[in-house]
Amino acid sequence: MAREAPLSKVAESETHGENSPYFAGWKAYDEDPYHELNNLGGVIQMGLAENQVSFDLLEEYLEAHSEALTWGEGAPGFRENALFQDYHGLQSFRMAMASFMEEIRDGRANFDHERVVITAGATAANELLTFILADPGDALLVPTPYYPGFDRDLRWRTGVEIVPIHCQSCNNFQITSEALERAYEDAAVMNLKVKGVLISNPSNPLGATIGRSTLEMILDFVTEKNIHLVSDEIYSGSAFSSEEFVSVAEVLQARGYRGSERVHIVYSLSKDLGLPGFRVGTIYSYNDRVVTTARRMSSFTLISSQTQHMLASMLSDREFTRKYIATNRERLRRRHGKMIDGLRKAGIECSRGNAGLFCWMNLSPLLEESTTEGELELWRVLLKEVKLNISPGCSCHCSEPGWFRVCFANMSEETLEVALHRIHSFMNQIKSN
Amino acid sequence: MAREAPLSKVAESETHGENSPYFAGWKAYDEDPYHELNNLGGVIQMGLAENQVSFDLLEEYLEAHSEALTWGEGAPGFRENALFQDYHGLQSFRMAMASFMEEIRDGRANFDHERVVITAGATAANELLTFILADPGDALLVPTPYYPGFDRDLRWRTGVEIVPIHCQSCNNFQITSEALERAYEDAAVMNLKVKGVLISNPSNPLGATIGRSTLEMILDFVTEKNIHLVSDEIYSGSAFSSEEFVSVAEVLQARGYRGSERVHIVYSLSKDLGLPGFRVGTIYSYNDRVVTTARRMSSFTLISSQTQHMLASMLSDREFTRKYIATNRERLRRRHGKMIDGLRKAGIECSRGNAGLFCWMNLSPLLEESTTEGELELWRVLLKEVKLNISPGCSCHCSEPGWFRVCFANMSEETLEVALHRIHSFMNQIKSN
Repeated sequence: MAREAPLSKVAESETHGENSPYFAGWKAYDEDPYHELNNLGGVIQMGLAENQVSFDLLEEYLEAHSEALTWGEGAPGFRENALFQDYHGLQSFRMAMASFMEEIRDGRANFDHERVVITAGATAANELLTFILADPGDALLVPTPYYPGFDRDLRWRTGVEIVPIHCQSCNNFQITSEALERAYEDAAVMNLKVKGVLISNPSNPLGATIGRSTLEMILDFVTEKNIHLVSDEIYSGSAFSSEEFVSVAEVLQARGYRGSERVHIVYSLSKDLGLPGFRVGTIYSYNDRVVTTARRMSSFTLISSQTQHMLASMLSDREFTRKYIATNRERLRRRHGKMIDGLRKAGIECSRGNAGLFCWMNLSPLLEESTTEGELELWRVLLKEVKLNISPGCSCHCSEPGWFRVCFANMSEETLEVALHRIHSFMNQIKSN
Repeated sequence: MAREAPLSKVAESETHGENSPYFAGWKAYDEDPYHELNNLGGVIQMGLAENQVSFDLLEEYLEAHSEALTWGEGAPGFRENALFQDYHGLQSFRMAMASFMEEIRDGRANFDHERVVITAGATAANELLTFILADPGDALLVPTPYYPGFDRDLRWRTGVEIVPIHCQSCNNFQITSEALERAYEDAAVMNLKVKGVLISNPSNPLGATIGRSTLEMILDFVTEKNIHLVSDEIYSGSAFSSEEFVSVAEVLQARGYRGSERVHIVYSLSKDLGLPGFRVGTIYSYNDRVVTTARRMSSFTLISSQTQHMLASMLSDREFTRKYIATNRERLRRRHGKMIDGLRKAGIECSRGNAGLFCWMNLSPLLEESTTEGELELWRVLLKEVKLNISPGCSCHCSEPGWFRVCFANMSEETLEVALHRIHSFMNQIKSN
């Protein structure tokens, strides 16, 4: 009998997190997906932070601008494009990304296209920064609740640890200096060297922006500890109004960029533009060495030049981007309002939100027991009986049981109404029991 | 004065290899590129393994099949495509890749699309496999001379070491069982655990295929040692005739797939199709656990669904692929012949080649001293005076000084003639001195 050649520890480990309820819920959806004609009793996917509300604008642009999809008459640009493998990325694309990021911030921050490093999605951007900032066994501090994918992106192949900054419902899960200090001390007790703080602003799963004073506090903290700050701003264009979002870039600008070389921003077009399939992520760093190293590393995770070409065309059209951003914000705000209202009528409250493609919903009053097991029990009922896939707070490492992330932008309004109806019936049933 | 927050050891290390003469030559070219109208005295780039000889066929296809570039009328497929972020990749694309790989092998090997894992280029594919097969401090055995990028791809972020299998000019740099055993022993002396052998077939930089008996010998070796075999076959469609290339897949098929779970093939469209900018790589593994793990890891390095869509269309057109492969092979053979003839007339011999976009050229008779320094001295003369960027053997870890890789498919025939003319003059000048 032939022996099996061993695989690596990384291959054997479970750090990829694919067996968490977050991904398990996706599988349950895949096996029995709701369809408004063919499968009315199927599972409605509310566990996927996808933005489908503004596709018509993208389609309209592409219909009017076929040059974005082809390479013009006789396709002289095809060769050049097909051969372009420079890990700097197409200059036209980096310039368009920088100006799109400025547009989202209403011009309150400036971005230099020479500091834009391209990656195949934010997934790769976050991993890449972790490789650059931390050694195996080092730690990053991440406020909870956080995006379940971080367990994979920051830890799996890098060997880096996440130490949670425990945030709480009493102040809408905002990051406090006490919580930050406690996380730092926790890391010390675990004998881990802290190399940085990673925040997501607007936060996934909270669907809320981080205020300016909190950003100031975090910047002071990382300066005092001499560590890095990664600000994942992939939902920045999905804040419901521009004023409600403050980028760390604006705070740095106001400080005259003092200490900016410890700050790195992650961005992506997967959420704000709804293009996850095109795998467009980016790192914006104020640190020259990080820019150089990230660029070198990006050879493992470049974006197809065909897609760079298309998006350079789209995003450098200022008229289009202005209209898109404004319309998309407004549509998301309306969706969010509908969601919150519907839940409130069913007797469910959410934490205060002003951004993103989801609400952070408090179902703790429904738990039989206030534990992770109690939360997962409710999650299973919602998935199997109510036929809704939503993400349990434990998959986001929330420190209080009973919170759930529920997405509202990856479906039609009609499907959202069906989902709300199911929730309403479920709550009525509970009340009557 | 603010302190600087430290970066990781990976970030500080020089393992990315960007300072090697291989990449330095590229920079010299970038600063003074030859142009047949504007810069006749500039550097000719012969250090870039790019295939420009068959672009007309791709352009012809795309002009006749606009549906590959758009999403059809009214673009109903656009949403679906833009949202497709499943790390399995588009099924249509994986099926097309599997059948293209069969076509290249003239149907002598079968590929199951469920075992095709997509990555953003072969660069990512090789790194990904290394993460899966080896732990930091483990070793892979790689025959020399090898592609300079392997130093980055296999070592930089993985912490894995490369131990060279020293091949020699006396047998056209073929891999022998003695050289394999010696490398294995070298690793033991260095206290490194060997986890696999990585070959490139056809070989870059040799431009030659590996014979069936050698493949048999390598398979027996990895079986005896209970280690893995990675076969990087990114130049398989660039062998000058189908019969001259034997894939490890064919050898496995002949063996009834005994022991195939230790074998993993890397492929890409960057060379055979000349599309490096589109970043299309793939791993084909016969090992279920490797397939599952590679698929999970591919979330760090997915291919834009726009590009998957385009290539699924192109590669599933059997008439097109047949014609492309046959024409491309024939054009490369002609180019290679022209190159070899031109060099021979100048008094330069190459090792026997039958594949790829380059020749492996013996300039050892020209060395002032038979050392790496002597080789680099000649390289500098060729770059600065003859104005040709070619890659010195030392950047490929060749164990004999005086060998150089010279590329012939990344330029027009006219430019190739200018390059040959320069070489001829240089050799005449040497003879007359």
